[in-house]
Amino acid sequence: MFESAELGHRLSKEEYAGIEPELRTALLEAQFDLLENKGFATVILINGIDGAGRGETVNLLNEWMDPRHIEVHAFDRPTDEASERPFMWRFWRALPPKGKIGVLFGNWYSDPIGDRAIGHLKKARLDQRLSEFNRFEAMLAAEGVLLVKFWFHLSRQGQKKRLKALEANPDTRWRVREADWQFYEEYDRYREVAEHVLRRTSTGVAPWVIVDGTDPQYRAVHVGRTLLDGLQRRLEQARKGYRPRQTAAPLLPVPDERNLLNSLVLNQPMDKKDYERELEKLQGRLALAVRSEAFAKRSLVLVFEGMDAAGKGGAIRRVTAALDARQYHVVPIAAPTDEERAQPYLWRFWRRLPRRGKVTIFDRSWYGRVLVERVEGFCSEADWMRAYAEINDFEDQLASAGAIVVKLWLSVSDEEQLRRFKAREEEAFKRYKITPEDWRNREKWPLYEPAVCDMIDRTSTGDADWTLVEADNKYYARVKILRVLVDKLESALAV
Amino acid sequence: MFESAELGHRLSKEEYAGIEPELRTALLEAQFDLLENKGFATVILINGIDGAGRGETVNLLNEWMDPRHIEVHAFDRPTDEASERPFMWRFWRALPPKGKIGVLFGNWYSDPIGDRAIGHLKKARLDQRLSEFNRFEAMLAAEGVLLVKFWFHLSRQGQKKRLKALEANPDTRWRVREADWQFYEEYDRYREVAEHVLRRTSTGVAPWVIVDGTDPQYRAVHVGRTLLDGLQRRLEQARKGYRPRQTAAPLLPVPDERNLLNSLVLNQPMDKKDYERELEKLQGRLALAVRSEAFAKRSLVLVFEGMDAAGKGGAIRRVTAALDARQYHVVPIAAPTDEERAQPYLWRFWRRLPRRGKVTIFDRSWYGRVLVERVEGFCSEADWMRAYAEINDFEDQLASAGAIVVKLWLSVSDEEQLRRFKAREEEAFKRYKITPEDWRNREKWPLYEPAVCDMIDRTSTGDADWTLVEADNKYYARVKILRVLVDKLESALAV
Repeated sequence: MFESAELGHRLSKEEYAGIEPELRTALLEAQFDLLENKGFATVILINGIDGAGRGETVNLLNEWMDPRHIEVHAFDRPTDEASERPFMWRFWRALPPKGKIGVLFGNWYSDPIGDRAIGHLKKARLDQRLSEFNRFEAMLAAEGVLLVKFWFHLSRQGQKKRLKALEANPDTRWRVREADWQFYEEYDRYREVAEHVLRRTSTGVAPWVIVDGTDPQYRAVHVGRTLLDGLQRRLEQARKGYRPRQTAAPLLPVPDERNLLNSLVLNQPMDKKDYERELEKLQGRLALAVRSEAFAKRSLVLVFEGMDAAGKGGAIRRVTAALDARQYHVVPIAAPTDEERAQPYLWRFWRRLPRRGKVTIFDRSWYGRVLVERVEGFCSEADWMRAYAEINDFEDQLASAGAIVVKLWLSVSDEEQLRRFKAREEEAFKRYKITPEDWRNREKWPLYEPAVCDMIDRTSTGDADWTLVEADNKYYARVKILRVLVDKLESALAV
Repeated sequence: MFESAELGHRLSKEEYAGIEPELRTALLEAQFDLLENKGFATVILINGIDGAGRGETVNLLNEWMDPRHIEVHAFDRPTDEASERPFMWRFWRALPPKGKIGVLFGNWYSDPIGDRAIGHLKKARLDQRLSEFNRFEAMLAAEGVLLVKFWFHLSRQGQKKRLKALEANPDTRWRVREADWQFYEEYDRYREVAEHVLRRTSTGVAPWVIVDGTDPQYRAVHVGRTLLDGLQRRLEQARKGYRPRQTAAPLLPVPDERNLLNSLVLNQPMDKKDYERELEKLQGRLALAVRSEAFAKRSLVLVFEGMDAAGKGGAIRRVTAALDARQYHVVPIAAPTDEERAQPYLWRFWRRLPRRGKVTIFDRSWYGRVLVERVEGFCSEADWMRAYAEINDFEDQLASAGAIVVKLWLSVSDEEQLRRFKAREEEAFKRYKITPEDWRNREKWPLYEPAVCDMIDRTSTGDADWTLVEADNKYYARVKILRVLVDKLESALAV
């Protein structure tokens, strides 16, 4: 969930000064439209890591908008009043009425995450709570509430840097308490719990928005724009007088230029000799792993996604070269057949799942739902928004049934893609590999890029995380793919 | 959940003969419309108690409709093929394509219910599975599948009668196996687990339909009509080309004349002398209970619902007479205030929840959502359909926080209500108690009756079940109410 938020996003003071006045005016305007229209209530959840700017953001929202119509509620441990009633009582009391904005700083997520991180709450009980939260939030959404859930994130390194900086300055040294360093020590555990919670409670109707909290300008713009967009869309719908199917705040492209894909250095060095040597070694290890006794009780689901001409086919052949032909299937995913179209979109993938001891390689996959179907409008926003949770559920089921899931995204640069397209047009035997549609898709890349980033953020999970492969150099890409695959296999089989 | 299904519904052979031909023709027609229209797939789940007619019903559906376009799948324990893949794999394989009807006889619910009943599955794990099923079914609904979930029920007595009857007849004696009597022994446990599962998985988009399995004619008509109505409504929507917000099969009034309300004998005997003696005793016990140390750690939520002039006010006064005025609040629920209207519908009840040691008496309650709001169309079908699960969640939270929840439905006969209305009009000091709206509501009773039955079936739970109070004789009603209340309090406080 935190991939994008750990890139070190920033906006300069100048950039911010160019954005802020307009954003601020628009937010104030939206707030007064809401107040007048009274069509729905807005609930903003503020959660996240200590020091990632939660308090500052709340202050900023109050500064930007009219604080008379924003209700801020901060929750610590429950009072006597609250602890004598059901857990959710104090949050119900804090719900804003239609027309208003409520900011819940600390909320139903805070205690369960904290308690789980320090081991005071069992996993099964946590999951039970999360299901309750999902049902509660689905109810709020069905009742028309605009729910915007912000998670402010800081990487472990960012957290350390922040504490060090505060300590180094005599004026701010007092702000660092022992508890802060203690929290830093438990960072990894907290992050792991938070990731689980966010993934399980990021639903189509109430998705989390993860905000990189490192840079004050960046996070302010990210929060402001997300809120503005959510308000404006719902106000538009309220004016038209219809109840939207999709009530969630939208996913917006990040406000700065940096994203998961363009942060990659795509042209990585590797020469042919190294490649051949590495390839042989890795294929040998792969062959051993899939022929092991341990693998006979597991299965492997390998997912290749990537840009056109990024080298998926070639990489797949380097994998299958190490496998017994009786052991694997390569499933190329193109437009669904008639039979597949008559079923829920995941059906065509369920039917191809491997048995124990077998391997299925998907050349493109169920991620088409949140890539091509999203970008081309083949399904509605409500459909692709719910797909992240459905896909996570699907992969959870694979993992619990013993499948090892490895997901690879292959990226090539614009120039390298162009070069390969042209080469394909020239080489007669590869001409079947290039179609007018490939050229069209290439034009649409700016639309695909945020969809890919969202996909990686929202479906990278402990058991089934994404590996991004820099693929301008085919040698490097193939070796990286095989290495990731072999490492994951060996570590899964050693358990 | 099983209240209605244990009334011993039946239809005579003659009644059945009058209904069946038309129903059958209509079903066949709907099936062919679906086949042509191909707008959606229909999935029918067949679950329930042994001997409640599951198999017979499946055969009947095949007989009524064209079996070439019904796919029946029976599931036993998973095969090797299936057990090497995720649990849901074999069910995905059995999903019918758009245009077809799939009957899943035994399905994702069977093993978890069975395993839990014999203690092979822990409660927390069961609940985890049920959340998975809810998410899966929500996904099917969002993908447009018409999901109809039938639970065939037999009371413990009905089950015994059936086995005895089979044994008594030399021709059928062979059909009774030892396992059948064993199952009978474990009936209560199985029923309890089933009730929990059904309640937790009866959602707005995929509610269970409970079928009284005692009488073959009755259950056939109940199933046939429910299916027909679901098909016809969705076909109509598909023809109009829009995606419905509410995709679930509707709740239909039961096919025979018998229901939970009209099965009551409303005029129960009790004379004034007995009444006064009993009342005094019960009020004494109530006073002791709410002043006990044990109650200081609990709270009491008392819900009065009932027909107009059924005597709610008088009964409430007999309860409060035993309480300390500082200890309780009576909350009369009328039309919501402006402030309440600006919030989700449950908000006005959350704000009135008692602290520990306190009592809140709701004179009408959150059940307005599924009674007056349903009947008067103040909310959409999707809204009141999801309300059952939301209300169950709400009451679960009350119970987990230590509240004792007691829910009472007061029924009076048509004649007695008329008598009281007229008496009110004549008595000057009671005239404020009768309005033109009361007369209008009286006219609408036929619409309220099925809504009340659905409410009782769908929100009667272990911790918060409904008590139906026969209220033609006020003495009897008040004593019954106090007795139920005192018994529940005493048993809850003794724990």
